[in-house]
Amino acid sequence: MKPINSKKISQTIVKFIKNTFKRESFTNAVIALSGGVDSSVSCALTIRALGKKNVFPILLPYGKLNLQGVTDALKLIDALGIPKRNVIQADIKAPVDEIIKIDSQMDVVRKGNIMARARMIFIFDQAKKRKALVVGTENKSEHLLGYFTRFGDEASDIEPIRSLYKTHVYQLARFLNLPDSILTKIPTAGLWENQTDENEFGFTYKEADQILYYYFEKKSSLQDIIAQGFKRNTVLKVLKFVKKNAFKHKLPFIAKPIL
Amino acid sequence: MKPINSKKISQTIVKFIKNTFKRESFTNAVIALSGGVDSSVSCALTIRALGKKNVFPILLPYGKLNLQGVTDALKLIDALGIPKRNVIQADIKAPVDEIIKIDSQMDVVRKGNIMARARMIFIFDQAKKRKALVVGTENKSEHLLGYFTRFGDEASDIEPIRSLYKTHVYQLARFLNLPDSILTKIPTAGLWENQTDENEFGFTYKEADQILYYYFEKKSSLQDIIAQGFKRNTVLKVLKFVKKNAFKHKLPFIAKPIL
Repeated sequence: MKPINSKKISQTIVKFIKNTFKRESFTNAVIALSGGVDSSVSCALTIRALGKKNVFPILLPYGKLNLQGVTDALKLIDALGIPKRNVIQADIKAPVDEIIKIDSQMDVVRKGNIMARARMIFIFDQAKKRKALVVGTENKSEHLLGYFTRFGDEASDIEPIRSLYKTHVYQLARFLNLPDSILTKIPTAGLWENQTDENEFGFTYKEADQILYYYFEKKSSLQDIIAQGFKRNTVLKVLKFVKKNAFKHKLPFIAKPIL
Repeated sequence: MKPINSKKISQTIVKFIKNTFKRESFTNAVIALSGGVDSSVSCALTIRALGKKNVFPILLPYGKLNLQGVTDALKLIDALGIPKRNVIQADIKAPVDEIIKIDSQMDVVRKGNIMARARMIFIFDQAKKRKALVVGTENKSEHLLGYFTRFGDEASDIEPIRSLYKTHVYQLARFLNLPDSILTKIPTAGLWENQTDENEFGFTYKEADQILYYYFEKKSSLQDIIAQGFKRNTVLKVLKFVKKNAFKHKLPFIAKPIL
């Protein structure tokens, strides 16, 4: 996978955002910031397209669980020069805890889904209030791996970086001069204490991106990918992850009787 | 619009549900029942496909607002012979009220969206818990009119009646011998006191269905539809509603830079 031309890709995405908002008659954007690289890059590109005053960052920690994320997001907001009055912050703990009460045996995965979806509710409500579009922050690696909560973090109106692998998102982050804390942060969905994406995967984004690139862009077979020098076990793990979550892309199934 | 062959259409949909669950290796279904005709018909068809024991009806009133819906849904559950132990009931008032606290100027539309999305959270969480697919209840009239909350009542894994107009759903309800209370009920999304779909539209489902049928199935022009004997004003209102909500079908917009 070759490095991208960060300058050209940024310009293309910024133009896409600008044109989309204009065509759809919107001036405002809301975007949830986790303090991670995806939302940071998406926010920086949106600001270039719409201007600082028209972008409303939303911070949605769950109690004390995502405080580092809030700190990093506030640093980004400061670095990008977004007006403080635009920042929306709410703690999702109270509503989430009201929902998880239904079941004393709630596991972390179910709780994680509920958190991601509670955030979606806040984000779309703020968009409605501000006549804004919701800027999504999903990258291509997460998308192909199916590493998202349906109707949760994947819900959006516009997706600036959906066509970029995680590796590319880091390249853009460096090009856009984002704070070091964001560039060096370990990727996490922040759904429980010490959760990291790569621990959940059992492989790194760097490994996954190369393998996904051969599999999806070059249409290489398992054998071809292994022949490129990747460990058989890693390739199998990545493709297993893809297949396990492939259902997320084909739902819902719709009955189509002939009337 | 001709009446459908209710027997044949029912059989086709039941077979579709049965085959889909089998192919995807699921035996259980969860379905939210509002007491309205769409969820009642969807539930009755699902039972024919999977058996009473494998269907878990979910009742999600908001405080006292949807109590008539709960009564009607329980009557349906009884009529269909679903085991009482399968029924899941939760009041969404506490979590919804925690969310709407964020804003003292919350209007009924925003509150309605929050309610629809809070229900989605409960439904998908129960599906995860029970290793079940979520049976959606959206009909074609609502779908074409865009009369739904994105990531709310439209969220599902399988849609049995999405290809049927509301008029057809009533035909199936009669064919399936559903309780009279469901057949004669005035359609409502139940999002606020005395809300009815048709008051919100400014036209009836009967009018809308005929006009939507000519517009979408027969590809008739505005003039052609009016020439069929419909009031110009009604046709304009229906098509305006369709166009106002068309954005719901084309989102999200995805940037696709060439890498």
